[in-house]
Amino acid sequence: MCDISSRLMTGLGVAICFLGAQADCADDAYLPDKWWPSEWGQDDQRGALNRLTPAKVLEAVALIRKGAVYDMTRIYEEDMPLFDLTPGTRKFTMTVPGGPSWGPLGENRLTWSEDFISGHLSQDGTQIDSLAHMATVLGDPGNLNEIRYYNGLTHAEIGGGRGFSKLGTEHISPIVTRGILIDVAGYKGRMLERSEEISVADLRAALNEQGMSEEAIRPGDALFYHTGWGSLWKVDNAKFNSGTPGLSIEAGDWVVGKLVVLVGTDNWAVEAIPHPDPNWFAPNHQKFLVENGIYIMENLDFGALIEAGVYEFAFVFGALPLKGATGSPGRPFALN
Amino acid sequence: MCDISSRLMTGLGVAICFLGAQADCADDAYLPDKWWPSEWGQDDQRGALNRLTPAKVLEAVALIRKGAVYDMTRIYEEDMPLFDLTPGTRKFTMTVPGGPSWGPLGENRLTWSEDFISGHLSQDGTQIDSLAHMATVLGDPGNLNEIRYYNGLTHAEIGGGRGFSKLGTEHISPIVTRGILIDVAGYKGRMLERSEEISVADLRAALNEQGMSEEAIRPGDALFYHTGWGSLWKVDNAKFNSGTPGLSIEAGDWVVGKLVVLVGTDNWAVEAIPHPDPNWFAPNHQKFLVENGIYIMENLDFGALIEAGVYEFAFVFGALPLKGATGSPGRPFALN
Amino acid sequence: MCDISSRLMTGLGVAICFLGAQADCADDAYLPDKWWPSEWGQDDQRGALNRLTPAKVLEAVALIRKGAVYDMTRIYEEDMPLFDLTPGTRKFTMTVPGGPSWGPLGENRLTWSEDFISGHLSQDGTQIDSLAHMATVLGDPGNLNEIRYYNGLTHAEIGGGRGFSKLGTEHISPIVTRGILIDVAGYKGRMLERSEEISVADLRAALNEQGMSEEAIRPGDALFYHTGWGSLWKVDNAKFNSGTPGLSIEAGDWVVGKLVVLVGTDNWAVEAIPHPDPNWFAPNHQKFLVENGIYIMENLDFGALIEAGVYEFAFVFGALPLKGATGSPGRPFALN
Amino acid sequence: MCDISSRLMTGLGVAICFLGAQADCADDAYLPDKWWPSEWGQDDQRGALNRLTPAKVLEAVALIRKGAVYDMTRIYEEDMPLFDLTPGTRKFTMTVPGGPSWGPLGENRLTWSEDFISGHLSQDGTQIDSLAHMATVLGDPGNLNEIRYYNGLTHAEIGGGRGFSKLGTEHISPIVTRGILIDVAGYKGRMLERSEEISVADLRAALNEQGMSEEAIRPGDALFYHTGWGSLWKVDNAKFNSGTPGLSIEAGDWVVGKLVVLVGTDNWAVEAIPHPDPNWFAPNHQKFLVENGIYIMENLDFGALIEAGVYEFAFVFGALPLKGATGSPGRPFALN
Repeated sequence: MCDISSRLMTGLGVAICFLGAQADCADDAYLPDKWWPSEWGQDDQRGALNRLTPAKVLEAVALIRKGAVYDMTRIYEEDMPLFDLTPGTRKFTMTVPGGPSWGPLGENRLTWSEDFISGHLSQDGTQIDSLAHMATVLGDPGNLNEIRYYNGLTHAEIGGGRGFSKLGTEHISPIVTRGILIDVAGYKGRMLERSEEISVADLRAALNEQGMSEEAIRPGDALFYHTGWGSLWKVDNAKFNSGTPGLSIEAGDWVVGKLVVLVGTDNWAVEAIPHPDPNWFAPNHQKFLVENGIYIMENLDFGALIEAGVYEFAFVFGALPLKGATGSPGRPFALN
Repeated sequence: MCDISSRLMTGLGVAICFLGAQADCADDAYLPDKWWPSEWGQDDQRGALNRLTPAKVLEAVALIRKGAVYDMTRIYEEDMPLFDLTPGTRKFTMTVPGGPSWGPLGENRLTWSEDFISGHLSQDGTQIDSLAHMATVLGDPGNLNEIRYYNGLTHAEIGGGRGFSKLGTEHISPIVTRGILIDVAGYKGRMLERSEEISVADLRAALNEQGMSEEAIRPGDALFYHTGWGSLWKVDNAKFNSGTPGLSIEAGDWVVGKLVVLVGTDNWAVEAIPHPDPNWFAPNHQKFLVENGIYIMENLDFGALIEAGVYEFAFVFGALPLKGATGSPGRPFALN
Repeated sequence: MCDISSRLMTGLGVAICFLGAQADCADDAYLPDKWWPSEWGQDDQRGALNRLTPAKVLEAVALIRKGAVYDMTRIYEEDMPLFDLTPGTRKFTMTVPGGPSWGPLGENRLTWSEDFISGHLSQDGTQIDSLAHMATVLGDPGNLNEIRYYNGLTHAEIGGGRGFSKLGTEHISPIVTRGILIDVAGYKGRMLERSEEISVADLRAALNEQGMSEEAIRPGDALFYHTGWGSLWKVDNAKFNSGTPGLSIEAGDWVVGKLVVLVGTDNWAVEAIPHPDPNWFAPNHQKFLVENGIYIMENLDFGALIEAGVYEFAFVFGALPLKGATGSPGRPFALN
Repeated sequence: MCDISSRLMTGLGVAICFLGAQADCADDAYLPDKWWPSEWGQDDQRGALNRLTPAKVLEAVALIRKGAVYDMTRIYEEDMPLFDLTPGTRKFTMTVPGGPSWGPLGENRLTWSEDFISGHLSQDGTQIDSLAHMATVLGDPGNLNEIRYYNGLTHAEIGGGRGFSKLGTEHISPIVTRGILIDVAGYKGRMLERSEEISVADLRAALNEQGMSEEAIRPGDALFYHTGWGSLWKVDNAKFNSGTPGLSIEAGDWVVGKLVVLVGTDNWAVEAIPHPDPNWFAPNHQKFLVENGIYIMENLDFGALIEAGVYEFAFVFGALPLKGATGSPGRPFALN
């Protein structure tokens, strides 16, 4: 392990080896084995989206019998929590210029307004991470050839100030698939705590409580789990931003084994942050996005589904095809 | 008609009575009759979305037999056309700070990037207009009490620099409904021209060419029409921005009579711009949004649907719930 | 006084009559008498800048004997305090896209970066208010004809979503004038408190402590006063943003009588906020900008001047000529 | 020279070796000799600003005899030319949210607006480059350790998505120094052409025409030259952006030898772009910023100085202290 003096303790109490730190600041035991080429070929940019087929669409659609719609999206607004490793670095601004902006035009006297939006929109609020969001630094962090993404692509190859040339959000095709929600908070009877880990046993027990077994999760499914942490949204933003409960490393492996297309939750990570072992930072993010091409959705609202007791549904999501982006906001919803 | 000297001729050749122009600069013959309260009550903010019911969802879902997905969305990128009445006033910027932004963190050496997006995102590219987008100026444009939106709401009541307090995009619930595409350009065998109007007869003939009649359009449907103007996208942005072909006023009335939930097309208006009668500016925008609560979608890509010859389909769209916004980008798509 | 029930109590404990509130929500005793046309004519847009003449420049330059420069500017950075009436509504973001953005170009292998900045830049950090920043609502706040700026200009006449057509920052010509700093905190021997008012007697006593009399203030001078509140900058941003000490209404009148070109201080107001009389909100802002065309500078750093004991100096400031803007950041400094 | 096939021809006709190109894509004959440590020590971040002393301030101030002010700044507005290597990548947006944004507050019924600004503000319009703006890629462009700035600092050491940790604009202290303007266009009797080089002989002849010799340029001076290219500003933005006339490489060396603090001109480069020898890209930018710590100012307006025939003056400029930024807008002006 590297000398702690080359690190900075952040507000999260997380030890950070910053870009430019010594290359020897790493313990190879924590680094993944070589993860490329991907199972979908060395040129693949879509990852687990390859699991979505017309048959999978029809499997999802067959679940729609009532015509009910369950919104899973938080409202984007200026006072929503904006997670940031250092305080205040994430932004979301929406303004409406003028009163109104233009006109009136024509004898019909039409006038209109158009919003101006600014911020880290693709990473704030309810969102999906593209495969360009994260990478593993295999050597010197100053050498972009040693920063590796999904399918082994390097930052030197695909990075850029105007967007990634590969793996960007435009590669996330519209998603219609079967969705499974595991209500872990419901099973526990309480909101999970910051840094609390969810084990495989927890997931199985929560499924059982819902009258389901783990066999209910099929390849290509969108898998969601509820921690209750989302109840802090706009109620206690500081606590919401301070960390997360989430899947243990073993639970993350279990999810990978289920061959899902994406994992989604009601907070901003898919693991416990800060991690109980401080040598880890967001290992499931790394495992899902970088090593397995499984997408991550964050800050989802499961309220409508849980209130209705719906744990199996058709899941619909269309990411904005933002060229070269690391993620996208959107409007995920469920039907049954 | 008002004295032309109080106007400004824009790049579009459109006569504009700017905010602050004299109140007598109006010919009442062009103004609509009082359009409120709406048919859904004086407190309604959802307009034609009220036509979407569980039964309508099931009607749409019943059309999904193959599990095929047809994307209807343009990629959001910096060199897409950005319509603006005066050159250069619309913006879209996406940057990726750093190389990458953060880390590496942990012994697992995770690093990541997060985009920064800035611009008139809710009105650029493929998008939907909320009912807050447009209004009619019934008197002095400097008096916000005389600027009226859907359901008669005034700008003084609902306007604001941080978003509209009513009618904003957060009121656009997820949409799953039956979609009908009328391929007018296919029927005409050519791209329609700038300022060219589409008549009711054109719509009927194009439907007929598709083996459909106008009875195929049912209440709550999403109605799309293809002008071919979208073929200019990123091919000739200046021409794309210079104007549009679109529905005549009578065709707009016909659409209203069909009780649709939304109207969408492959350009940035739902009428001819500049209008053949220069006293009109965007009368169908006004009719749909302001008077009838019917939503408008712009800059759609019908390429996949037309190539497959699909004119009737399940239509899916989730607007970003941007609080108080005048519209939203999104990822509309079709299934059959 | 209007019915309190039509108001909203903000975080500052300030009663707000929002746009759209009843026109009768006003007590005329608090409204100024008609303040236009200005003493520089009904077409004037420059206000007190008219007091700056070549002779005044030479008067200032004559004070430069050592060639010493005293910076008066705070660093613009993401964790500076951003005052906002409702939490989180002001933003400042600076990112550097890419690593670096471009290149290398040529055989000389040049590469470069260019920042992206976003936010309420003209009103955050060290800044000057233009005469377009503030106005008085003489009647119905929904009627833009009754919102009056400097020289009686109405919002209907000059407002606009793309900038003000008059009074914008481009009218603030470069400033070289005599500067006077009154160290009120030095005289009091402590930082002034939130809502604490500075009287005319205080100003006179502080000047006396500096070996100066009030006659030292001459027409066209830039007048600065030090409250000590700036010591909270980046030390306790929440307290810094919570309110201000500042000039009493009488002291504001006294300043107007001195015929200065601008008033500057080390916090974000030129009066006590919240005001001891809750019926007032920022009366000196109103008096200076709207009624008298005197400019306001905020969030100045007097540290270098006070450390050197310099209270009379040549003051230099160049506002960014941002077309139609309500203010500007900048780099004010002093010389002697 | 590297294989042209690994390059991209841009709109400027400039051959670009993009980040990620092979390291052998370089001809060492075009690379500078090792340029660090700087003459002001290996820890210096201020470069030629070290030449500004109290004595130099007094030398400048002694030139102020009339009290006349000459503005040298272009107005920042949305339709100003925004140079960009690929079209549309630079942005500048200023909007005024609401009508107005807030209030009225208090019985004094105060209301106000605050602008929202977004864009590459530190590199657009009249601006100064900080020493963090440019670097030379000595080896593999994907290895940030081989990208070298002023004083040999590497991108791995000082780069970052939230600003540079060294060399940022906050290190540009307020500038008061002697200014010299060489009116090359005046001497030639015409606007210089795109790609036209200015020789040392041209500079000497133009100085002679002004009744000055090259000895008039003294250490610490701010040196400006007028090409006439600025007459295209807002008249023919496309041509203005298409390239520049500017100093030859030899003229750049001559300027370095004069020990100036900064070089400024009326276009967006300090050399001919595209360069007559296509193997060069912006060699004077590289020489001034990277190798010699001499600052660059761009898009200046010399109109007022030339009209008055003023070629020697006190020059005043205060960069915004934007933490970590690559440059700054500002309000340069001259006095005599």
